[in-house]
Amino acid sequence: MARIVMKFGGTSVADLDRIRNVARRVKREVEAGHEVAVVVSAMSGATNQLVAWCTQLSPLHDAREYDTVVATGEQVTTGLTAIALQTEGVDARSWQGWQIPIRTDGSHGKARVEEIDGAALIERMQAGQVPVIAGFQGIGPRERITTLGRGGSDLSAVAIAAAVKADRCDIYTDVDGIYTTDPRIVPRARKLERVSFEEMLELASVGAKVLQTRSVELAMKQKVRVQVLSSFEDKPGSLVVDEDEIVEQPVVTGVAYSRDEAKITLRRLPDTPGIAAHVFGPLSANNVNVDMIVQNLGADGTTDMTFTVGKADLPRAQETLNAARDKIGFEKILADPEVAKISIVGIGMRSHAGVAATMFNTLAEKGINIQVISTSEIKTSVLIGVEYTELAVRALHTAYGLDAPAN
Amino acid sequence: MARIVMKFGGTSVADLDRIRNVARRVKREVEAGHEVAVVVSAMSGATNQLVAWCTQLSPLHDAREYDTVVATGEQVTTGLTAIALQTEGVDARSWQGWQIPIRTDGSHGKARVEEIDGAALIERMQAGQVPVIAGFQGIGPRERITTLGRGGSDLSAVAIAAAVKADRCDIYTDVDGIYTTDPRIVPRARKLERVSFEEMLELASVGAKVLQTRSVELAMKQKVRVQVLSSFEDKPGSLVVDEDEIVEQPVVTGVAYSRDEAKITLRRLPDTPGIAAHVFGPLSANNVNVDMIVQNLGADGTTDMTFTVGKADLPRAQETLNAARDKIGFEKILADPEVAKISIVGIGMRSHAGVAATMFNTLAEKGINIQVISTSEIKTSVLIGVEYTELAVRALHTAYGLDAPAN
Repeated sequence: MARIVMKFGGTSVADLDRIRNVARRVKREVEAGHEVAVVVSAMSGATNQLVAWCTQLSPLHDAREYDTVVATGEQVTTGLTAIALQTEGVDARSWQGWQIPIRTDGSHGKARVEEIDGAALIERMQAGQVPVIAGFQGIGPRERITTLGRGGSDLSAVAIAAAVKADRCDIYTDVDGIYTTDPRIVPRARKLERVSFEEMLELASVGAKVLQTRSVELAMKQKVRVQVLSSFEDKPGSLVVDEDEIVEQPVVTGVAYSRDEAKITLRRLPDTPGIAAHVFGPLSANNVNVDMIVQNLGADGTTDMTFTVGKADLPRAQETLNAARDKIGFEKILADPEVAKISIVGIGMRSHAGVAATMFNTLAEKGINIQVISTSEIKTSVLIGVEYTELAVRALHTAYGLDAPAN
Repeated sequence: MARIVMKFGGTSVADLDRIRNVARRVKREVEAGHEVAVVVSAMSGATNQLVAWCTQLSPLHDAREYDTVVATGEQVTTGLTAIALQTEGVDARSWQGWQIPIRTDGSHGKARVEEIDGAALIERMQAGQVPVIAGFQGIGPRERITTLGRGGSDLSAVAIAAAVKADRCDIYTDVDGIYTTDPRIVPRARKLERVSFEEMLELASVGAKVLQTRSVELAMKQKVRVQVLSSFEDKPGSLVVDEDEIVEQPVVTGVAYSRDEAKITLRRLPDTPGIAAHVFGPLSANNVNVDMIVQNLGADGTTDMTFTVGKADLPRAQETLNAARDKIGFEKILADPEVAKISIVGIGMRSHAGVAATMFNTLAEKGINIQVISTSEIKTSVLIGVEYTELAVRALHTAYGLDAPAN
C-alpha cells in the first residue's frame, strides 16, 4: 500500500471522455489498495478563454480579479472529476485551494505556496475517499483566491504530495516520460527510467519542458519522488528522484537544446574594473535576464563582451544598452538571434574528467563553430548557429552513447 | 445619498460589451453619491453548459459537486465585472459566497439562505468601494459551496439588500418593468409604477415570471423595496413595495395567465369521508403538486372530482392515480392538457365586493366557458379552454379599466 498523488494536466481532462478516462485510471490505483489524491488542471482551452476575457476588458487588469476569474477553470474540473469518480463507484470529493487551505503569499498571478495543511486530506484518504484538488490555485492574504502562474498545477501536485507525505507524485501528461533528447530530432532517443532532480532542472532550463521548473525545485527540496507518465498510454514513465536512488549513472544523461536565446556582442569596451556592472546593471534593472557571458581581452586596452538574452527580450536589451552607451563606452552593438544553445547534462560529469572535450571534438568534426561556452557542475552548454541545431544534437547523442539499439 | 443593491441577470452580462454597459450603469449611481453593491448572475449560457457537463457524466450526480461546478459561472462574472468597473475608474472587488460569507443550509442545488454577514460589505461601501457579489451561491455546512436553485440570483440580491440595510434593491433584467398583463397579448398593457409584494407573488405564481417567487417572499418578509428595470433601456422601472406605500389602489392591478397546467377529472368516485385524502395523498407522495380543485356531488351517492396539475407532471399523475384506482374507486380518468388559467390580481379586491362577478360576466359575454374557479384574498382564477386565452385576457384587461389610453 502506497500513498500517491496523481496529477492530470489540461489535455488529460480536455473533455468528458478524457475525464472518464482519468476516473478509470484513478480507480485502478484505488483498487490496487493505494491511498490516492488527485490534482487537476483546467480543461485545455478553458484557461485561455478566461485570460482573454480579462485582457480584453483591460490589458492592465487587477491581478486579484484575474485570479478570481481564471481559478474557476480548475474548480470546474474538480467537480466534474469527482462526479466521474463517483460514477465509477469511487468515493470522492472536490477541494478548492481555500477549502484545504493551500496558503500562498499575495503575489497574485504568480503566488508562492507558503503552507498546506494536509490533515483533512490525509484523514479523508485514510477513510478511503479520494480528494480531487484544484491545481494552480491557493488562498492568499485577506482570504482572496490566488493562482500560481502557468504550469502551476505541477507545483500544486508536488506541494500537496509533500503535505500529505505521499510516496510518489505521478504527473500524467501528453508525453510518456523524459527522454535523452527530443525524439522529434533523434528518433533513437531513449526514455529515461530514472533521472535526478538536478539533471531534470538543467534539462528543463534548456528547453525540455516536461515539468515546470519550480515544481522540480520543490520536489528536490521536499524529496518528493515524481513520476512523469502518459495519461493516454498504459506504460511506465520516468522517475525523477534523489540521485541516491540512481544506481547506474551514465556520464551524460541527456542532450538538450534551446532556440529561445539571442546573442549580443559589445565591441571595444574600455577594459576597466566595474565595466561588467555598467553593462549588466541596467539590463537587470529592465528585467532582462542574461544567461551565458564571455569576455575577450583585446591588445589595445579594450575588450569585447558577448552574452545571451531571451529572444523576446532582445529589443528591450538593445534599447537599454544604447541608452547607457555613454556610461558603458562601447563602440558598437552586434545582435544575433540566429543562435541555439546545446547542452549536455549528467550528474556523472562531476566525477568524470574530459566529458566536455568529447563535446568540443564532436562538434569540431562536424565543422560546427562554437561561439560561447558555459559550464556548471553537471552541465556544459555551447552556443552555435541555429542552423546546426539538429546536426549537433544528433552527433552528441551518438557520441555519448545515448542512442537506443537499432530495431 | 442612498444605499442600493444592483442586480444584473445573465442576459445583462452575456458578453464583455454588456459587462462594460453594466459598469457604466453602476458608475452613474456611484457618481450620484450612492453607496452601491452589485450582484451578478453567470453570463447567459454559461450555467447551461456547466449543468450539461454534470448531467452527461451522471444523470444522478452528487449535488455537492454539481454546486461546485455551476457556482463558477457567477464567479467568472464577478471578476470580469470588477475589472470593468476598475477600468471605468470605480473602485471594486469581487466577493464569492464563502468570502462574505452567505451561510446557507445543506440543501445542495436549492439551498436556503440562513444568514448573511453584511459587516464587511457595509465597511467597503462606506469606504467608497463597490462589492461585486456572486449571486446564486453561498456556503453550506462543512465549508462546501451551495447554490440556491434557478433564479437564485434574485434571491441573493434581496437577501444582500436586507443584510446591508439597503434603501432599494434594483433588479436589472431584459424587461423594463411589471405590466398589467403580457404586452405581447395586450398591446395596451400599462407598466405599473408600483405593485405590492402580495400582488407580485400572485402575479408570479400565475405566470408573470419577472421575479423569482422566493425572492419576492423574502423581500416582503424583510421589507426590501425592489425595483424591476431594464438593463438595456434608460427609463424608470416598476417598484415592488409594501402596500402601505401604494397610495392609489386600483381594484384589479393585473391580469395573468398560465398555460402550464393540465386538468384531470375523476368520474364517479364514492362520496365517502376521506376520499380526498385517498386521491391527493398518493399524488403528493409522488411529488405532483395539485393546484385548483372542485368537487361536484352526483345524485347517486357518487361524486366527480376535477383538479389541475403541472402539465409536465400529467403522465406521472395519471400513472399514480391508476395505480391507486382500487383504493380510490373511481370509474374513469379524463385528462385535458388544453386548458389555461386566467387570474385577476389586486389588493383592492379585499375591500371591494363584486369584483369576481365582473370577471364571470365578461367571460360569459364572450361565450367562454369556465371549467374551474378558485379564489384567494387578492386573486380570482378561472380555468378555461386554452384557445380562449388571448380573448379572455384582453376582455378582462378592458373590463377592469387597465387599458392604457389609446395613442
